[in-house]
Amino acid sequence: MEKKEDQQLQQEEEQVVNPWEVSAKDGGKIDYDKLIDKFGCQRLDQSFVDRVQRLTSRPPHVFLRRGVFFAHRDLNEILDAYERGDKFYLYTGRGPSSEALHLGHLIPFMFTKYLQDAFKVPLVIQLTDDEKCMWKNLSVEESQRLARENAKDIIACGFDISKTFIFSDFDYVGGAFYKNMVKVAKCVTYNKVVGIFGFTGEDHIGKVSFPPVQAVPSFPSSFPHLFSSKDDLRCLIPCAIDQDPYFRMTRDVAPRIGYHKPALIESLFFPALQGETGKMSASDPNSAIYVTDSAKDIKFKVNKHAFTGGQESIEKHRQYGANLEVDIPIKYLNFFLEDDAELEHIKKEYGAGRMLTGEVKKRLIEVLTELVERHRRARAAVTDEMVDAFMAVRPLPNMFD
Amino acid sequence: MEKKEDQQLQQEEEQVVNPWEVSAKDGGKIDYDKLIDKFGCQRLDQSFVDRVQRLTSRPPHVFLRRGVFFAHRDLNEILDAYERGDKFYLYTGRGPSSEALHLGHLIPFMFTKYLQDAFKVPLVIQLTDDEKCMWKNLSVEESQRLARENAKDIIACGFDISKTFIFSDFDYVGGAFYKNMVKVAKCVTYNKVVGIFGFTGEDHIGKVSFPPVQAVPSFPSSFPHLFSSKDDLRCLIPCAIDQDPYFRMTRDVAPRIGYHKPALIESLFFPALQGETGKMSASDPNSAIYVTDSAKDIKFKVNKHAFTGGQESIEKHRQYGANLEVDIPIKYLNFFLEDDAELEHIKKEYGAGRMLTGEVKKRLIEVLTELVERHRRARAAVTDEMVDAFMAVRPLPNMFD
Repeated sequence: MEKKEDQQLQQEEEQVVNPWEVSAKDGGKIDYDKLIDKFGCQRLDQSFVDRVQRLTSRPPHVFLRRGVFFAHRDLNEILDAYERGDKFYLYTGRGPSSEALHLGHLIPFMFTKYLQDAFKVPLVIQLTDDEKCMWKNLSVEESQRLARENAKDIIACGFDISKTFIFSDFDYVGGAFYKNMVKVAKCVTYNKVVGIFGFTGEDHIGKVSFPPVQAVPSFPSSFPHLFSSKDDLRCLIPCAIDQDPYFRMTRDVAPRIGYHKPALIESLFFPALQGETGKMSASDPNSAIYVTDSAKDIKFKVNKHAFTGGQESIEKHRQYGANLEVDIPIKYLNFFLEDDAELEHIKKEYGAGRMLTGEVKKRLIEVLTELVERHRRARAAVTDEMVDAFMAVRPLPNMFD
Repeated sequence: MEKKEDQQLQQEEEQVVNPWEVSAKDGGKIDYDKLIDKFGCQRLDQSFVDRVQRLTSRPPHVFLRRGVFFAHRDLNEILDAYERGDKFYLYTGRGPSSEALHLGHLIPFMFTKYLQDAFKVPLVIQLTDDEKCMWKNLSVEESQRLARENAKDIIACGFDISKTFIFSDFDYVGGAFYKNMVKVAKCVTYNKVVGIFGFTGEDHIGKVSFPPVQAVPSFPSSFPHLFSSKDDLRCLIPCAIDQDPYFRMTRDVAPRIGYHKPALIESLFFPALQGETGKMSASDPNSAIYVTDSAKDIKFKVNKHAFTGGQESIEKHRQYGANLEVDIPIKYLNFFLEDDAELEHIKKEYGAGRMLTGEVKKRLIEVLTELVERHRRARAAVTDEMVDAFMAVRPLPNMFD
């Protein structure tokens, strides 16, 4: 009881960021600097961006050069090892709680695809259907159905099947994976998970049991069909920063059970259309652009719901310019408009009041419509056979080529 | 903290019986009547013994007719269904924490073998190597090695391979079994497992996660290779009564996830050589007879360590007779001397002082030596191939014949 009150107090005073809740202090913006301090991760500075560019001999992804992926843990060690000729593997995942993904869901996958291509490394993608079954009170069958549907969206991001293993927890937990779950669970007290995740005594034990499930894909021995003689292979996890608590726990445990700590590269949250103070909400379809939205939906949502920094009247806008700090069209373009020069031009003109909100929105609608259309075409080409192939427990003989 | 103090207080006041601790009040004897009341199970009275005899057309097992299995839950429903022509399956298990089993460990298996033969029903035997890895701090590998060694002792009890599936959790957890674990875990709060098992916040989350693992073999859908179209099959669990907390939890959850509650048939504890107030202790080899003991070991242990109700001197013994209530040789003979007439004779003569402690001990040594020798021969005949065969995930087409 005392613990619960502590948490409520904390919630009123501070921003809350955990895998199930993201809310800023007093309805303001998330303070990412504070989050880095609190979590104890590192800021990903320009030297990393330059180093990745040098090591991979290709331009850094827009999410990297614009600071969408802004924090890390031990990325330097991954790059040091890579420079010495040691490969690593990538691990990311998704909790399949809904049929359709929104743009925020795509971000880690778009970035992971870039990392896979740039470093030529294998990738495991965990679909936590067990988690969603427990947290969202979905049936086992429905969670598994959603996992398969979501797998199609993930595959549509263009992953290389010769380097990628997608798995559902309900299908894959067991064997070496379960042994690692037990090894992790032995090292984590209940009080510890309460401290990390804020569980209470009235939470069911499925929640308490889950953190090891998300922890163990960080260890190559959880995938004997992929990494059977590669126990030393390091793992890099691209994810949004709300997943950091799982991997803080994992990194704490890893050396105690003889494993490398996984490295992380962590992103900002993708803001809701209503602005950074709002949250994208599954119950409000107007808070996000979904990959299933039509061109008409996108146009309507951006024009009707996107919060902007434009001024009240054209006159004032011409005089004062737009407030880019709070402008959602600019933030979205920052994620998805690849042309740096065009983005700079828009920001300059819009900020100076020479470009109007309607014009920026129009450009955003074009960019998003093209992105969503491209995704829709790619997803339509994903067959059930392809899903089966990506999810088959199989060796990947060419995963490092 | 408050919770922990409550438990300590309770411990001082009352007997404690849970899967990890059995201790009587003030060093006295376990009060089984009180246990039945507290746990809410039923006493297994003579009418059940008669009914089992009638239904199976064979004499009831010595453990049944002498009240070693003394309590039950819903055994009547199992027998009602059986009488209507509906079969059931048996589920029992062992936590493989030691190389060698003692006689107490054999009791549920000897009884389960009788039930399998008498009712002609399939049996699943769970080896909770995951549990022992977590509670006893054994490595995964050592727990699995012990599980296999213990499987040999279990197989030596004579189970029918065409009706028996033995599994290690580390090998078998996954798929349908894991899905049922998640279904159970969703229905049990942390506070609930604290109430049932007495966990504290400093216990690791592996302990909190484990109860669903022991729960789900109660459900036929956890074994699709055995019971794929038999979701309605009932389960009967023979076990010592200290395992009741797991199955109270299981029975509470079962109807909420659409499954039958498992039925139970529960035994007394097998007493230590030092008497019912003592506990058999893995750290004191003289507290129990092990199946690996030589004839000489058995003779020494019984003669040197068995607590008896005989009088201080032959004269007093002839005058007052032995106190059978506390006499360990009599208690052991009650478990293992099959001849009812001989047992009655010994009790009568010994109780009246006409038979001396040394004579009773001599008879017990004969009985135990024969039992242990028979077990040793049977175990020596168990090959690694037989273990593999019992543990293979396979259909059992003749399991109801």
